[in-house]
Amino acid sequence: MSHAVIHDVLAGRYAEGETVTVKGWVRTKRDSKAGISFVAVHDGSCFDAVQAVVPAELSNYENEVKRLTTACSVIVTGTIARSEGKGQQFEIQATEVEVVGWVENPDTYPMAPKRHSMEYLREFAHLRPRTNINGAVTRVRNCLAQAIHRFFHERGFNWISTPIITASDSEGAGEMFRVSTLDLENLPRTEQGKVDYSQDFFAKETFLTVSGQLNVESFCCALSKVYTFGPTFRAENSNTSRHLAEFWMIEPEVAFADLADIAQLAEDMLKYVFQAVLTERADDMAFFAERVDQDAIQRLQKMIDSSFVRMDYTDAIEILKSSGKTFNYPVEWGIDLQSEHERYLAEEHVGAPVILQNYPKDIKAFYMRLNDDGKTVAAMDVLAPGIGEIIGGSQREERLDNLDQRLLDMGLDKEDYGWYRDLRRFGTVPHSGFGLGFERLVSYVTGIGNVRDVIAFPRTPGSADF
Amino acid sequence: MSHAVIHDVLAGRYAEGETVTVKGWVRTKRDSKAGISFVAVHDGSCFDAVQAVVPAELSNYENEVKRLTTACSVIVTGTIARSEGKGQQFEIQATEVEVVGWVENPDTYPMAPKRHSMEYLREFAHLRPRTNINGAVTRVRNCLAQAIHRFFHERGFNWISTPIITASDSEGAGEMFRVSTLDLENLPRTEQGKVDYSQDFFAKETFLTVSGQLNVESFCCALSKVYTFGPTFRAENSNTSRHLAEFWMIEPEVAFADLADIAQLAEDMLKYVFQAVLTERADDMAFFAERVDQDAIQRLQKMIDSSFVRMDYTDAIEILKSSGKTFNYPVEWGIDLQSEHERYLAEEHVGAPVILQNYPKDIKAFYMRLNDDGKTVAAMDVLAPGIGEIIGGSQREERLDNLDQRLLDMGLDKEDYGWYRDLRRFGTVPHSGFGLGFERLVSYVTGIGNVRDVIAFPRTPGSADF
Repeated sequence: MSHAVIHDVLAGRYAEGETVTVKGWVRTKRDSKAGISFVAVHDGSCFDAVQAVVPAELSNYENEVKRLTTACSVIVTGTIARSEGKGQQFEIQATEVEVVGWVENPDTYPMAPKRHSMEYLREFAHLRPRTNINGAVTRVRNCLAQAIHRFFHERGFNWISTPIITASDSEGAGEMFRVSTLDLENLPRTEQGKVDYSQDFFAKETFLTVSGQLNVESFCCALSKVYTFGPTFRAENSNTSRHLAEFWMIEPEVAFADLADIAQLAEDMLKYVFQAVLTERADDMAFFAERVDQDAIQRLQKMIDSSFVRMDYTDAIEILKSSGKTFNYPVEWGIDLQSEHERYLAEEHVGAPVILQNYPKDIKAFYMRLNDDGKTVAAMDVLAPGIGEIIGGSQREERLDNLDQRLLDMGLDKEDYGWYRDLRRFGTVPHSGFGLGFERLVSYVTGIGNVRDVIAFPRTPGSADF
Repeated sequence: MSHAVIHDVLAGRYAEGETVTVKGWVRTKRDSKAGISFVAVHDGSCFDAVQAVVPAELSNYENEVKRLTTACSVIVTGTIARSEGKGQQFEIQATEVEVVGWVENPDTYPMAPKRHSMEYLREFAHLRPRTNINGAVTRVRNCLAQAIHRFFHERGFNWISTPIITASDSEGAGEMFRVSTLDLENLPRTEQGKVDYSQDFFAKETFLTVSGQLNVESFCCALSKVYTFGPTFRAENSNTSRHLAEFWMIEPEVAFADLADIAQLAEDMLKYVFQAVLTERADDMAFFAERVDQDAIQRLQKMIDSSFVRMDYTDAIEILKSSGKTFNYPVEWGIDLQSEHERYLAEEHVGAPVILQNYPKDIKAFYMRLNDDGKTVAAMDVLAPGIGEIIGGSQREERLDNLDQRLLDMGLDKEDYGWYRDLRRFGTVPHSGFGLGFERLVSYVTGIGNVRDVIAFPRTPGSADF
C-alpha cells in the first residue's frame, strides 16, 4: 500500500517533481492529436480524479494506453506537475502505466460514462459506487455516520448495540418480519394443530426489531447517556421514496433530561453533523449543489445558522387553521399532522426548522410522558424546511402508575412489559430520547429524493437483490 | 442537564468549595453513629461513584436519606471538598438530597449489592448495566467501538452498511435464519404444492446475513478503502462461551492490498484499539484486572509492545508435529487447526501473537486467492495468546478464471454469483480484507470468558429475552 492516495496528490501533499504512484480506475480518457493521452484516474478518496498525462513514448502506449476505457484499473507512476488546464492544480506526468484489469466489452459496460437514471443505477447496486453520484453519496454517508458517533462520544454517551432479533413488538410501531429456522415445508405442530414455535430456534416467536428504544432505556437507567446506531426494520408494503424495509436508526436516550433538553440535543446534533459534512466533504457537496439540488449547501448552512423555533402542537393547529390555506387533510386539534402541514409550518410560516411539542396523547405511543393537562404528552418532532419531520422524540413516562394506565388505555398487556416496568419500579428517573432515520438524514443532506439511493443495497417490497 | 457529570467531579474539574449538583443512583449507603450518612452516587460516566457526605441536619434526613438503598435515584447538591478517606480525592458535602425514585421492596431487588454469578446477571439483562461489572463492560465496549471507527476514519476508510436481509448465502459460512412475512398458519403454495416464496415480502426466500464481505467488496472496487461494522447472524445450535446467534462484525476491505498489507492492517488496528482502551478506560480496566482476570492490562500492553510473528501454515504444521505435545486432534498437513493448536503456537512456541498465513485451499472459502503453489490460498488468521484466532482474513481471488474454477470445485453455481463475478469482469483489482468478531474482541479485552456477558441482550439457542 505504499502508493499515494489521490486526495493527497490533489491537495498538494507531494512536491512538484516528486515521483508518485497512484492506483485506481479510469474515469475518462482523451487522446490528443499530438500523441498524448489524458487519463483521469480516481480511487474513491475524494470526488475528483487526478489527470495523468501519458506520452506516446511509453512502450505500452499503442497497445494498452490507447485501449483504456472507463473503469479499467491502472497503476500510474509519474512526477507531480502543476496543471495548466483548468480544474485540478496538480497532475501526473506519467512515466509508467500498468493496466491491472480490463473492462469486458466496454461498449456494453453498464456504468459507461453517461448520465444514467437513478432507477437504472439501482439495478446495478454493485457497480453504482463507481459513479460520481454514488461515490459522493457514500463519502457523505460515511462522514455523517462518523460525525454522529463523534458527537455522542465527545458528550460522554455510550453506544449500545440493542438486539436485532426480538421477541417483543416494542411499541406496535409497525409490521414486523418473522425470524425463524423452522422448516416451512414441514412445520412442527402443537396438539391443537397450531405452529409449534417452541421448536423454533429461540423456542418462541421472534421478529426483527422496529426500534431499539425500549432496550436502550435500560442502559440509560444505569449509564445516563446512551445511544443506538443500528439497523431497524418495517415489513410495510410502502413503495414510497421515504420508506425502506431495512434502514438505520440513531436513538439517543438521556437520564434526567426533559423534553426541552432532548430538543436541544437534537438541534445541537443536527448542526454538528451538518457542519461536519460542509467542512469535510466540500467536494461532494459542491457536486450535489451543481447536479442534484442547487440549494444543497445553503440549506445546511441555513440550518446551522438558524435557531430552531419551539412551538406547541396546539398553537400549530391554530396557525394552520388561520393560515387561509386549503390542505388535503383538514386541520383539527387531535389530528396527526401530515407532511403538507409540517412543511407549511417550517417553510412558509416560520421559514426555519421548527420543533413541535406536546402532541395529543391519543396519537402518540404509550411510553410518552403525560403532561399535567391530561390531554397531551411530552413528545416532539423536528420539522425541517424541505422535508418535514426528520426527528421524533419524547420524554418517557417514568411514573409507574401513569405508565400502567397508558398501557391499559391502549389495550396493551402490562405483563408483556414486565422488564420495562422494572425500570420504573427500581430507582426510576425522568429520561428522554429521540429517533433519527439515518437514510432520511443522508437524503436531506445530499438532496437525493429517494432513500433507496442513499443506502448501499436497498431492501423494499419485492426487492432484496445482491 | 445543567448538572455535573460525576466523572468530572472526581477528575477535579470543579474547585473546592464550588457548589455542584449530581444526578444518579445510590451504589451504597453507610450511616455513621455520629449522625452522618455516606452515600455513594454513580451516574455511569466512570467506574467510581462519588461520595456524598450527608449531615443529619437536612430536613429529609430521617425520613428519606436514612431509608435510601442501592439503586434509588437521587439528586444531590453540595460543595466540593477534599476527601479525607482513602479512595477518591474529592467528595460532596451535601446541602440537599432529593430522592427521585425509590426501589420497590429493596430486600428483593434483584441487583442488591452482593456478588452475583454471571449466569444470574444474564437473567436480568435489563438491570445488569447497573452493576459494576456490566457498567465497566459497557464503557469498554463503547470505547472499542469508537476506537475502531476512528482508526478506519483516520486512514480514509468509508463505513458501509451492507445489507442485513439477504437473498444469498454469501459463502456457505453457516446456518442462516429465514426472514419472512408469510402467514405460517396459512402458507401460500405453488401449483406443485411447495411454499410459494414469490408471495413473500421480497418475492423470494430471504435470510439474515452471515457476513457483509461480498457486498462490501463491491464498494472496495470503487472507493478503495471500506469497512463494515454491523450485526451478523448464525443459526447454529452452538451453546458455547464463544458463540452468539447475533453478533457484531468488523470487516475492512482494501483495494490494491495483498495478504501482507492486510495482515499489517490487522496488527495496527488491534494495537490501536488496545491502546485506546488502556488510555481511555483505565478505571474499568483496573477493575477487570482486580476482579476478573489479573492479566487483563498486561496482556493488552504486551500485544501493543510485541511484533506479531508471521508464520506459514505449512511451517506451523511442522512445528506442531515436532512439538512433542499430544493434541486431541492429530496434526497433519491439510487439517483445519483447532484451538489447542493455535494456542500452542501463540502461547508456547512463539509467546506472542502469530499471524498464520497460506492455508490449504480445501479448508478455505471459494473467494480466497489461490497461491502459485496451486495448493494453498492467501488466507491469514491472527492468533492471540489466551484466546486463539481473533481475526481471519484473506486476499480475494481477483482473477475471473480462477474464481470460476474455485466455484466449480466447491460445487457452487456461478450463476448465483453473477454480480460478484462482475467485479472481476470490469476493472478487477487485487484486494484483501479481514473479519473481526466484535464480542470476541470485547471478551479478550475484558477477560470475561463468555461472549454472552459482553453484549447488551445476548441471543442464543432457546433465548431471545428482552
